[in-house]
Amino acid sequence: MKRQHDDYTVGIIGLGLMGASMAYALRGFRQATLLGADTDALVCRRAEAAGAVHRAFTDPMEVMERADLLLFCVYAHHIPGLLQAGAARLKPGALLGDICGVKAPLYAKIAPLLPEGVDYVGVHPMAGKERDGFENAEAGLYRNSGFIITALPCSSAEGVETMRALASHIGATRLSVCSPEEHDAMIAYTSDLMHIAAAGLCLHPKAEMNPAFTAGAFRDCTRVADINADAWTELLLDNRSHITGCLAQYMADLGDIKAALEQNSAPALRSLLHKAGENKRELLHK
Amino acid sequence: MKRQHDDYTVGIIGLGLMGASMAYALRGFRQATLLGADTDALVCRRAEAAGAVHRAFTDPMEVMERADLLLFCVYAHHIPGLLQAGAARLKPGALLGDICGVKAPLYAKIAPLLPEGVDYVGVHPMAGKERDGFENAEAGLYRNSGFIITALPCSSAEGVETMRALASHIGATRLSVCSPEEHDAMIAYTSDLMHIAAAGLCLHPKAEMNPAFTAGAFRDCTRVADINADAWTELLLDNRSHITGCLAQYMADLGDIKAALEQNSAPALRSLLHKAGENKRELLHK
Repeated sequence: MKRQHDDYTVGIIGLGLMGASMAYALRGFRQATLLGADTDALVCRRAEAAGAVHRAFTDPMEVMERADLLLFCVYAHHIPGLLQAGAARLKPGALLGDICGVKAPLYAKIAPLLPEGVDYVGVHPMAGKERDGFENAEAGLYRNSGFIITALPCSSAEGVETMRALASHIGATRLSVCSPEEHDAMIAYTSDLMHIAAAGLCLHPKAEMNPAFTAGAFRDCTRVADINADAWTELLLDNRSHITGCLAQYMADLGDIKAALEQNSAPALRSLLHKAGENKRELLHK
Repeated sequence: MKRQHDDYTVGIIGLGLMGASMAYALRGFRQATLLGADTDALVCRRAEAAGAVHRAFTDPMEVMERADLLLFCVYAHHIPGLLQAGAARLKPGALLGDICGVKAPLYAKIAPLLPEGVDYVGVHPMAGKERDGFENAEAGLYRNSGFIITALPCSSAEGVETMRALASHIGATRLSVCSPEEHDAMIAYTSDLMHIAAAGLCLHPKAEMNPAFTAGAFRDCTRVADINADAWTELLLDNRSHITGCLAQYMADLGDIKAALEQNSAPALRSLLHKAGENKRELLHK
């Protein structure tokens, strides 16, 4: 891929599923030169060959010092170290962001590391796949998906607008701007609890299970149980203060259903199922 | 639709989503004449007009006395009454069956009602939809789905073979033959628990929820929460002896995940998520 323009450079740190898909999707964004970094040299070569980025580096500093817009697409625990090492080399006026799934604990760590004169706006593109890695990346991953922009106290309105433009460019269609705390509280339910529920359903499957017994309910309720255990361990622990409440509520609700079954109470069970159906239909129409 | 043949008659009691889809899918099966019964006269007229059946009756006895193969596609609690009223009028040599989702409690009630000279083999086609009723029926509902044949002590081998042929004709691709008790124990996990898990996830949604926050995990984990509360209340209560154990196990597994979160234990959480993922992948390849 030929470099298109030298005036605006987008840097993407981490060329896994999310980062490389972001690179593909950002092609043409503000006629930017796209630079990528990945610790895996083979991934760097493949990203250049596939045209995901104009150039890729194994040293993230090469990208951090050139980027006007820098996106961290790595595990959250890598970001403070990258900022500590590279803060002094960031371009004045650069806009930084991350795509991590838990915001407040990360920003508590990195806010003190941000130098004067750089902007920071976090984002959370609500998309993913069961299979990770550069080889599963695709330009359409974020198309028609939700996109959350988390503004920090230091974020500029211009930075938020740039992230809105980015969301639009990659095809996201449902946008929300909120604080890191609001993000974390909401995501604990809409994403984290769903993954826990699905994983829980797969901890004690029937050993003698026969595929004749499975239909759409089993397939869909357990789909996301095929989880990246390392990534989700970090994500769930980072957001545990919000998740434990959601999970306790879920267990209490399951306990209500269990009590209705044990008491053989049709009115109690019907009322719970009716309420669940109503809520689900209401959420569908939001 | 013109009657094709008078030698073999298939009767379907109940022309809702499941029964009418069965009628459509059974077209051409053993060149049978297809008769349907539904208490709703409008549904009967529409079923005839749409060619779902050759003739439809509001009085189920009209169908019961003519059928060589009779399928009850109604709520389980209607079946004992239908058999009590119609047992004497059944054709000698007829094969009866039902498509209910819980087998053992039903068969305990109806086995004493079956007259000499009629055969009985239950089936459970593993398919469905969120939307019920004749108007949502379709010929392809059972295509590529699982299909369970539950043989009673009184079932003949020939009756089981007929149900195998029926499964093949409607396009089911994963077949299992088992006892009613085995069916109920397995279905408590693969279907009943999944519906309870999804319903539970929708009992306390975040009121301020914004669609930007929902992605595939939310959509899939909660899909079947939009449930027919009446149908599922009956189904879940009928199978409660098996479900309560599955549900208790699920709640204990969620409790293990909650404990790992509360203890901030990455090794414990990673090991649970890893096991869930492994089990899910193993089930996928069965």
